[in-house]
Amino acid sequence: MSTFTIHTLGCGSAKPSPKHQPSSLVINHRENLFMVDCGEGAQLAFMRQRLKFSRLRHIFLTHLHGDHVFGLPGLIGTLALQGNGGHVTIHTFEEGKRILTDIFNFFCREIPFEINFNVIEPGEAVIYESNSLTVRTIPLRHRVPDVGFVFEEKGKLRHIDRKMTDFHGVPTFMLNRIKAGEDFIKPDGTVVPNRMLTTAPTPPLRYAHISDTMYMPELAGKIGPVDLLFHETTYLEEHKSMAAPRGHSTARQAAMVARDAGAKRLLTGHYSSRYDDFTLFKREAEEIFPHVILNNEGLSVPLD
Amino acid sequence: MSTFTIHTLGCGSAKPSPKHQPSSLVINHRENLFMVDCGEGAQLAFMRQRLKFSRLRHIFLTHLHGDHVFGLPGLIGTLALQGNGGHVTIHTFEEGKRILTDIFNFFCREIPFEINFNVIEPGEAVIYESNSLTVRTIPLRHRVPDVGFVFEEKGKLRHIDRKMTDFHGVPTFMLNRIKAGEDFIKPDGTVVPNRMLTTAPTPPLRYAHISDTMYMPELAGKIGPVDLLFHETTYLEEHKSMAAPRGHSTARQAAMVARDAGAKRLLTGHYSSRYDDFTLFKREAEEIFPHVILNNEGLSVPLD
Repeated sequence: MSTFTIHTLGCGSAKPSPKHQPSSLVINHRENLFMVDCGEGAQLAFMRQRLKFSRLRHIFLTHLHGDHVFGLPGLIGTLALQGNGGHVTIHTFEEGKRILTDIFNFFCREIPFEINFNVIEPGEAVIYESNSLTVRTIPLRHRVPDVGFVFEEKGKLRHIDRKMTDFHGVPTFMLNRIKAGEDFIKPDGTVVPNRMLTTAPTPPLRYAHISDTMYMPELAGKIGPVDLLFHETTYLEEHKSMAAPRGHSTARQAAMVARDAGAKRLLTGHYSSRYDDFTLFKREAEEIFPHVILNNEGLSVPLD
Repeated sequence: MSTFTIHTLGCGSAKPSPKHQPSSLVINHRENLFMVDCGEGAQLAFMRQRLKFSRLRHIFLTHLHGDHVFGLPGLIGTLALQGNGGHVTIHTFEEGKRILTDIFNFFCREIPFEINFNVIEPGEAVIYESNSLTVRTIPLRHRVPDVGFVFEEKGKLRHIDRKMTDFHGVPTFMLNRIKAGEDFIKPDGTVVPNRMLTTAPTPPLRYAHISDTMYMPELAGKIGPVDLLFHETTYLEEHKSMAAPRGHSTARQAAMVARDAGAKRLLTGHYSSRYDDFTLFKREAEEIFPHVILNNEGLSVPLD
């Protein structure tokens, strides 16, 4: 059972088509759901994946283009209709807070539901932190202010070597401190170093979400060696000349970022509706970087 | 080939479900498309029915609940993306104009596209008129201001009886005037009455769209003998006690309106998501009124 899974709700781009839905993705981290972007139809895709509305507490918006936002009023209306007195926090720029507040005040006024905003800036910052996860922003280059998000687990506790703790007579109430790295001091004053009682913790998992952006070579260093990198692949190289002026990337460029960041795997998406054969995105990216996952609606990718 | 067809894009109600989409319907009158309501996902359903965006010039909103409106920003964005320098008129209340203008100003500012508003009142009035069609409003009783729409063809031209016009030597350039009802005066002054040269015109077609409303017995008289009546059937009689307080009707009540109006056929819809077997709506309505069409996404109903 994975503790960190990515669910794709929509991986199309602005021009709608029956082939793909507009952008939306959900991160399930230990049964807490974090949504990134919310294109039209996201709430239905959310239901189809059997995700639970009551687990969704945070929505992160990369930027304020309609294909990343127009599912939000309907989703908020539905969350409110659940009638469980819930709340949700939307992480967006100041202007997003302004327009969304107007929309919710108008359309969701009948139903009591708590909508909080965390106003973010289009720069680098940690914008969310819990006891197990942080989310930081990376500025991107698009036609409007735009950020990527890196979801990083915090350092985890070391694993107890049960045989050794039993051998040294470590009492049960001490185990959490030993997991956290403390040495054990026996009643006779002997110090048993922590490394003799524990093994290394499971490495923290990291997911980076990069959409929408033109190719930025310096992005790789800011992302680092994540377990999974979603990087938009709006175009194929044959339409490369369109990519930068429109603030988008090709599959090959996304693969270069994945390779240079030292990512374990690359997830494609934000496909232009001009294409019919989406396997071409995978093939093009694989010429640069071998571990490519071809995105599609309904896809789930466990990180561990 | 029908000249007046109703296309259902969504016939569910506020609480979303994978069973039905929220409200939206398109009237195709002689290749001019008129949309009534625009719930989330309407633009994709529009494409799936192979309707043409370039033919859509008028959108009518019954009321300003999210399940009738949240597809509009995405649809307008898509119309604008077509880049054909088009325009669309949205018929809605003053407060609808206000909030929608804010939304479009924010999200559609990048693309030039003409959005006009025709501000309507929640009363009885003719709100649209072309040379072949009028649209009038009927006030409904819901939790917010709400109107139904009656689409009525104008009186059509009489049919030429070719044998008789030839016999009396009516010149070709006179035929349009004869169709419009004029008598023919021969060169010698003899008057040939119009009824000897023509047969009765095809009767004008009428469609009434009634959503959302509690049961209103007086509605039938205001609608009149339409060719097709869409009347919301949110509930079955077993949940009748919920219907009126929430501003909705049962299938039986809709059938009573259809019967009392002298409608030819009744189209169901706006189904509550609590039901699984939608054929029950048809069966319940047919106990009162025999000509019931069970609505569903993708349905097309020709009026002629």
